[in-house]
Amino acid sequence: MPNEVKSLNEECGVFGIWGQPQASNITYYGLHSLQHRGQEGAGITANDSGCLTNIRGLGLLSKVFQDPKRLEELPGTAAIGHVRYSTAGNKTLDNIQPLMFHFTDGDMSLAHNGNLTNAHSLKQRLENEGAIFHTTSDTEILIHLLRRSSHTDFLDKLKESLRTVKGGFAFLLMTEDKLYAAVDPNGLRPLALGQMKTGAYVVASETCALNSVGAEFIRDIQPGELIIIDDDGFKVDYYTKDTQLAICSMEYIYFARPDSDIHGVNVHNARKEMGRLLAKEQPVEADIVVGVPNSSLSAASGYAEASGIPYEMGLVKNQYIARTFIQPNQDMRERSVRMKLSPVKGVVAGKKVVLVDDSIVRGTTSKYIVRLLLEAGAKEVHLRIASPALKFPCYYGIDIQTTDELIAAHKNIAEMNQFFGSNSLGFLSVASLIKAIGLKTKAPNGGLCVAYFNGDYPTPLYDFESELQAELKRLHESRKQEV
Amino acid sequence: MPNEVKSLNEECGVFGIWGQPQASNITYYGLHSLQHRGQEGAGITANDSGCLTNIRGLGLLSKVFQDPKRLEELPGTAAIGHVRYSTAGNKTLDNIQPLMFHFTDGDMSLAHNGNLTNAHSLKQRLENEGAIFHTTSDTEILIHLLRRSSHTDFLDKLKESLRTVKGGFAFLLMTEDKLYAAVDPNGLRPLALGQMKTGAYVVASETCALNSVGAEFIRDIQPGELIIIDDDGFKVDYYTKDTQLAICSMEYIYFARPDSDIHGVNVHNARKEMGRLLAKEQPVEADIVVGVPNSSLSAASGYAEASGIPYEMGLVKNQYIARTFIQPNQDMRERSVRMKLSPVKGVVAGKKVVLVDDSIVRGTTSKYIVRLLLEAGAKEVHLRIASPALKFPCYYGIDIQTTDELIAAHKNIAEMNQFFGSNSLGFLSVASLIKAIGLKTKAPNGGLCVAYFNGDYPTPLYDFESELQAELKRLHESRKQEV
Amino acid sequence: MPNEVKSLNEECGVFGIWGQPQASNITYYGLHSLQHRGQEGAGITANDSGCLTNIRGLGLLSKVFQDPKRLEELPGTAAIGHVRYSTAGNKTLDNIQPLMFHFTDGDMSLAHNGNLTNAHSLKQRLENEGAIFHTTSDTEILIHLLRRSSHTDFLDKLKESLRTVKGGFAFLLMTEDKLYAAVDPNGLRPLALGQMKTGAYVVASETCALNSVGAEFIRDIQPGELIIIDDDGFKVDYYTKDTQLAICSMEYIYFARPDSDIHGVNVHNARKEMGRLLAKEQPVEADIVVGVPNSSLSAASGYAEASGIPYEMGLVKNQYIARTFIQPNQDMRERSVRMKLSPVKGVVAGKKVVLVDDSIVRGTTSKYIVRLLLEAGAKEVHLRIASPALKFPCYYGIDIQTTDELIAAHKNIAEMNQFFGSNSLGFLSVASLIKAIGLKTKAPNGGLCVAYFNGDYPTPLYDFESELQAELKRLHESRKQEV
Amino acid sequence: MPNEVKSLNEECGVFGIWGQPQASNITYYGLHSLQHRGQEGAGITANDSGCLTNIRGLGLLSKVFQDPKRLEELPGTAAIGHVRYSTAGNKTLDNIQPLMFHFTDGDMSLAHNGNLTNAHSLKQRLENEGAIFHTTSDTEILIHLLRRSSHTDFLDKLKESLRTVKGGFAFLLMTEDKLYAAVDPNGLRPLALGQMKTGAYVVASETCALNSVGAEFIRDIQPGELIIIDDDGFKVDYYTKDTQLAICSMEYIYFARPDSDIHGVNVHNARKEMGRLLAKEQPVEADIVVGVPNSSLSAASGYAEASGIPYEMGLVKNQYIARTFIQPNQDMRERSVRMKLSPVKGVVAGKKVVLVDDSIVRGTTSKYIVRLLLEAGAKEVHLRIASPALKFPCYYGIDIQTTDELIAAHKNIAEMNQFFGSNSLGFLSVASLIKAIGLKTKAPNGGLCVAYFNGDYPTPLYDFESELQAELKRLHESRKQEV
Repeated sequence: MPNEVKSLNEECGVFGIWGQPQASNITYYGLHSLQHRGQEGAGITANDSGCLTNIRGLGLLSKVFQDPKRLEELPGTAAIGHVRYSTAGNKTLDNIQPLMFHFTDGDMSLAHNGNLTNAHSLKQRLENEGAIFHTTSDTEILIHLLRRSSHTDFLDKLKESLRTVKGGFAFLLMTEDKLYAAVDPNGLRPLALGQMKTGAYVVASETCALNSVGAEFIRDIQPGELIIIDDDGFKVDYYTKDTQLAICSMEYIYFARPDSDIHGVNVHNARKEMGRLLAKEQPVEADIVVGVPNSSLSAASGYAEASGIPYEMGLVKNQYIARTFIQPNQDMRERSVRMKLSPVKGVVAGKKVVLVDDSIVRGTTSKYIVRLLLEAGAKEVHLRIASPALKFPCYYGIDIQTTDELIAAHKNIAEMNQFFGSNSLGFLSVASLIKAIGLKTKAPNGGLCVAYFNGDYPTPLYDFESELQAELKRLHESRKQEV
Repeated sequence: MPNEVKSLNEECGVFGIWGQPQASNITYYGLHSLQHRGQEGAGITANDSGCLTNIRGLGLLSKVFQDPKRLEELPGTAAIGHVRYSTAGNKTLDNIQPLMFHFTDGDMSLAHNGNLTNAHSLKQRLENEGAIFHTTSDTEILIHLLRRSSHTDFLDKLKESLRTVKGGFAFLLMTEDKLYAAVDPNGLRPLALGQMKTGAYVVASETCALNSVGAEFIRDIQPGELIIIDDDGFKVDYYTKDTQLAICSMEYIYFARPDSDIHGVNVHNARKEMGRLLAKEQPVEADIVVGVPNSSLSAASGYAEASGIPYEMGLVKNQYIARTFIQPNQDMRERSVRMKLSPVKGVVAGKKVVLVDDSIVRGTTSKYIVRLLLEAGAKEVHLRIASPALKFPCYYGIDIQTTDELIAAHKNIAEMNQFFGSNSLGFLSVASLIKAIGLKTKAPNGGLCVAYFNGDYPTPLYDFESELQAELKRLHESRKQEV
Repeated sequence: MPNEVKSLNEECGVFGIWGQPQASNITYYGLHSLQHRGQEGAGITANDSGCLTNIRGLGLLSKVFQDPKRLEELPGTAAIGHVRYSTAGNKTLDNIQPLMFHFTDGDMSLAHNGNLTNAHSLKQRLENEGAIFHTTSDTEILIHLLRRSSHTDFLDKLKESLRTVKGGFAFLLMTEDKLYAAVDPNGLRPLALGQMKTGAYVVASETCALNSVGAEFIRDIQPGELIIIDDDGFKVDYYTKDTQLAICSMEYIYFARPDSDIHGVNVHNARKEMGRLLAKEQPVEADIVVGVPNSSLSAASGYAEASGIPYEMGLVKNQYIARTFIQPNQDMRERSVRMKLSPVKGVVAGKKVVLVDDSIVRGTTSKYIVRLLLEAGAKEVHLRIASPALKFPCYYGIDIQTTDELIAAHKNIAEMNQFFGSNSLGFLSVASLIKAIGLKTKAPNGGLCVAYFNGDYPTPLYDFESELQAELKRLHESRKQEV
Repeated sequence: MPNEVKSLNEECGVFGIWGQPQASNITYYGLHSLQHRGQEGAGITANDSGCLTNIRGLGLLSKVFQDPKRLEELPGTAAIGHVRYSTAGNKTLDNIQPLMFHFTDGDMSLAHNGNLTNAHSLKQRLENEGAIFHTTSDTEILIHLLRRSSHTDFLDKLKESLRTVKGGFAFLLMTEDKLYAAVDPNGLRPLALGQMKTGAYVVASETCALNSVGAEFIRDIQPGELIIIDDDGFKVDYYTKDTQLAICSMEYIYFARPDSDIHGVNVHNARKEMGRLLAKEQPVEADIVVGVPNSSLSAASGYAEASGIPYEMGLVKNQYIARTFIQPNQDMRERSVRMKLSPVKGVVAGKKVVLVDDSIVRGTTSKYIVRLLLEAGAKEVHLRIASPALKFPCYYGIDIQTTDELIAAHKNIAEMNQFFGSNSLGFLSVASLIKAIGLKTKAPNGGLCVAYFNGDYPTPLYDFESELQAELKRLHESRKQEV
């Protein structure tokens, strides 16, 4: 997305491996293909016969491990790794994962993708009991619960702790002799298991990471499951049976890489189908279909195919990342944006354009792109969004915790169309989204979480319940005032 | 391209501006959109009321100007800039441009895209006369000629010097009070003139750079022309009338950005048309068309459109660049490649695939991609190349100065098909290439240089003549031996 | 010291300030003059109206705060800072201080110089109660004790915690509205209080840091004291009355900067006096006195003065620090050492030299310097050490926790003299050391800790008691075997 | 020196070696001990069987060769290296040496310490003949002369060129098969020859560099000599017999390292003798002698010895270099200075101090140090300078090309004493300086250049003649006006 970070940030990617020489090297490659899930920081913990070593750093994986010697400092045959998403604030190293814990009775390391909905109340309770938290992230809570559990068996302690935390999560926990992988009771965050030709087991947020290290896919980790991997192989256990599938639909729409499969559905295929259904729901007479590179290309080609309107490369993305220095004035800032996305005049001039984008958050980017195309000579620009309008916060791991920045929470279609300067505007319906993904399940909403579109949260919201009510009330009043 | 640099390297991009406050800032933005033309080094010379300042460095533009203060050290209302292509050897700062010359009677700065064919003999002649060269590049020769010219008028000196050098070139020369832009007599290298809304004039290797700084296109610099820009505006002059258009066809096929127009033809449109004609010349029965990202996507969509076979995203390119550290073993190295390009299993599995690539140099990448697709489950892979087979060296500015690394110089279609492991292989014909680009000219080969395809060089080769003959003889004998 | 780090490492320097605009800037300057106390890492926590921000990093202060923007990220009117000493292992960022603690009821930050003797048993006890430690340093223990204290008043909690930890310490604890400074019951580690002209209060490990920021010295923090600083000024409180002065004598001998005063005694003057007394105790007939730069120059000039033998600059230290890259062979490694310390041939050739060093740990450096001087033509080299022989471990904050590397624990004077290749060898007596420092106190050993010289530890050793006994037994047996 | 660079900058140090494996490694070590002669930039050219490779960079040697691989990129058995001094302006890489020249008939590389007095006129003449200069330094001129010489024999060309350039110089010129070393006809700049145990020959600006690499001193290069080193050994030749010794006296006073010998005189011994003679010429009743660290310690100890007043460490220099970031205000700037030099209160308080400095340029530092001592409680401060007052420019390689910044050119002793705030002020006489150094020669001024003290330049000044006259006239008038 040009200039602005799209404000739709995945909370991290995780990767783990057990039983492989140079495990940290493989983890580096695995994390590299998960880099799109987080650019704020990266880290790896390696396990050398029970001795755990951890290296973490701010920035891209390639920066953290720029010095070739860093990976050599992570010897061992097992490892877990993590990439963390980037936001403006709180960019402190302390929050970069995997977290490392040294106990007199042994080390452990933890990596987490997701967001807990009862973190605040758990944290307060634990602090009152004398616990000291070293990070501002939720992740640490699991370890405090584990260490304070009244159970004597480690596995019982862990299961109890997993039952205590609520929300969306995929956890990788490595101890001296085992690697544990667990997913929340709704399977909100994805996690897949695979196996290397060497026999080593691999777990990763997305199957593209399995492919990138040459591992064969075995299975998705199911809601409520706890996978235990050690030198004897892997074992599927569970910490709760009270589950119901509700995979984050934004994974299919925007987050995941097109070459990943989630619960058996290829992401590119799902996006193309969203484009096809969008063409049926929101048709328009036009000369060419243009997708916003790179995330909307699958949907745009689906729209083109279903509508019979030719797909053209009307926008080009500069593959080189410009240094972001402070721009002296507005004119310079616009030029800075222009460095990332360029219209192809020779393609769009004089044409009626269907502009396909995957989703809209603030809308400032869409507004900018519409203007780019019109300035390049497009006769008309019809904006088509290959997902429903985002109207509600997410509390399970996507960085939308307020509706303030969601344009669709504040404006209706006509108002948005005017704001964007487009000739028409259309979104995909929730029903078509569910159909396009087409999971084979009888769970509500086709086994998807679509709460950010329709407010239908698959779980109680715990600490966030009152926050959501306040948000909705405020929103309601703001709409009234506008009218 | 995965792993290997494709061995098809453009020799540089140039950008110049006259009459604009903060000229070096605009030059930074302009060079940024020319970054694909060279990643070895970058530099800018700024002109502050006749005082020239120069900053150059190795690596990407964003690295050279990483410190926000560097651009502030380049004050003034005019500037020229340069990005240089990357090769293994000779990566020394001395060769990074623009070159800067301090004379007791004033400064000048020079930026050059191209390659001179009589550089060696000129250099030797000049050294015998006592000249000292400080770089190993050709560029410096022009200044030595200029300073030793017997003419008294500067413009006469410059024209004489431009007539003396041979080959392919686009020069930008900035003196204290003027900016000169010149293109070789065949127009082998592109150069375009534009104007900012502020009135400032801009020259750039590609029109995408004009767009990126918000300049309006005025005209392409024609063969033999010498444009003179100063505070009174621009003037079109010429240094020779003995010209004939022969634009480098690889600019359309591979080098230029799809949003650039060269001599009135949009690059994306030309590529798409190459794809369409390729579908007609080299049809095949298949389920899906897949392009090699990112450079072959235009041609692939043209192939899909003309053949009626649906275009699919069967390959994904990782947008994050991995650190290139030394791989401990072959297995690791392959994994390193895999980090850049991934097949989409869910798309290609069980399918007959038409794989469209823009061009083939060594062929090792093509071989690797074919294997990637087959391993991901493709039933058949039919390789289609949207340009003719590369068989001859280029001496005008592309980094193919020997046929050793050109697979098509050593193998016929059947041999290559076997080498790649593809089910079939087809190239675009030279005639179709010329037709796809479709320049409006009566010049031979449709105004294009297609020498690397058919050996038909548009000029005498001077210092390289004997080299080419030796090359061809060696090639002939090697083919004989193989038979 | 050339090549080897002298293996005598201070455990850190601390600096704090309250009531000063740009407090982190002042802290930077203060820490800079404490840099000799630790080069492994540095950090600052700033307090902006109760909001605490912390930046830490590995390496020298100037590296951690290389980017001018880092200090701007630490706004506020109070701050504490820390420099940490360098050892081979455990160079992890987690252990760099000040430690930062975020509680739901407020933040606090802690900086510590020293070593706790009951850390291990306290840590085990706390972990059994569910505590999670995030660092491998002792420092964190104080906060765990504080948070678990059964007292209700914060000050009572803190005092109880300070009474619970044993060993040598100087703590700076900053909460949202107060800065606490405390020293162990023996005053093993130094800490001084001062005041800026602006009225702001400053605490620092050494008075040189007060001088460097322009603060006036007020008083040394006394054993058992707890100083409380806030917007109303400072208050002297105490957490225990069970105290007895035993300042680390190595502070005077080696660690502290010569311009610092500790408990009223200037360090340079103390060293010079050690040199004078050494001349009396260990006289020798010679031509010149040469000191090992830079730490032994004070003692050497004292020796020269008392003996009447002229002081000469027979050794020069290169002020530029060479990059430490891996040396291909032994010859190269020696050259690397030679880069740091050079003999002055023109001074030492043909002379009988008294070489004065402040102390000897392993002895490898002394051996090397003796050889340097002899190779440069010295006729005789008489080694004189301006402190007693180091024979016992320190458990209060100096990095000698085993006698393995102490040459004087294993060899007698004659054996050492032979090892060094010197013509004679002499140490200062403990009695003279005490006299040279001359603290006005009736405490045993003149108010000094001299345990590393004579085994007379001023406190019980807690967790280290058995370790010391084992050490001594092993040592005893090894001496027997040698005989 | 605190804050300001003392404005007395040596123009560079050179090092060369022939006949030694890993020659660039040895050169690194050699340059390291010459680092005090230049911190702006450093470079090495290595010679691998006639193939010359060059690496240069801005900043300290350790920064330029920070990456361990850089030295590996400089293979070969011969090398020359250079460190360049630091000034505010013109810090461009182009001027960093050794300069590298690639000719079609072979490579050569040149390193130069000194300054040419006819550079400007030679440059103008050469440019008129078509020469292009790539640097703004004088050094390049020699190569242009060499390449244009009408002689046919290389040695004749070189000798003619050396006779053509005027001023102060020490040149190292490396061709494919030889290393040449030459010194100007007055021997203004030092250069010494030595030999490694391996048989390899070494040349260096100072003998400390010979020592640091373990080479034995053979001889100083004499005025007018040209040493030729190749695989057959070294040969002493000369390019002129019209010579007269006039070694730069500032080498003894300030520039050279105390462990170096120049023309047989040890620098520390010379400085100590300057201090002794100063004590006799400028006696004063006082309690302690304090030297300004580090450069004035030799002279101060000489003063102490001759006067019988005890030498004390009244000033301490921080061995850690602080990051120089922009200070928000004057108060902060002062603090920044204070970080480098600290008075030892416990030593100077209540004392009458003789403060010995080696030389005075602008005087701002002296003024600052006097104030430091008085603020620290000194009762009186008597400033004694161990060299004569600097009143005239130097055109042979020291960075004083105008008298504007020389305080002694504008003020008399009384005025300076008032400016410094000292209780009294005294300089060493030129006669005593000459006596202190005591070269065995019958040349005028004891074989020394003392022009900056008395205007007695040992050579004609060529291009600078008129400049000096203008300078003196201006100075004369300014003194008149003041009166």
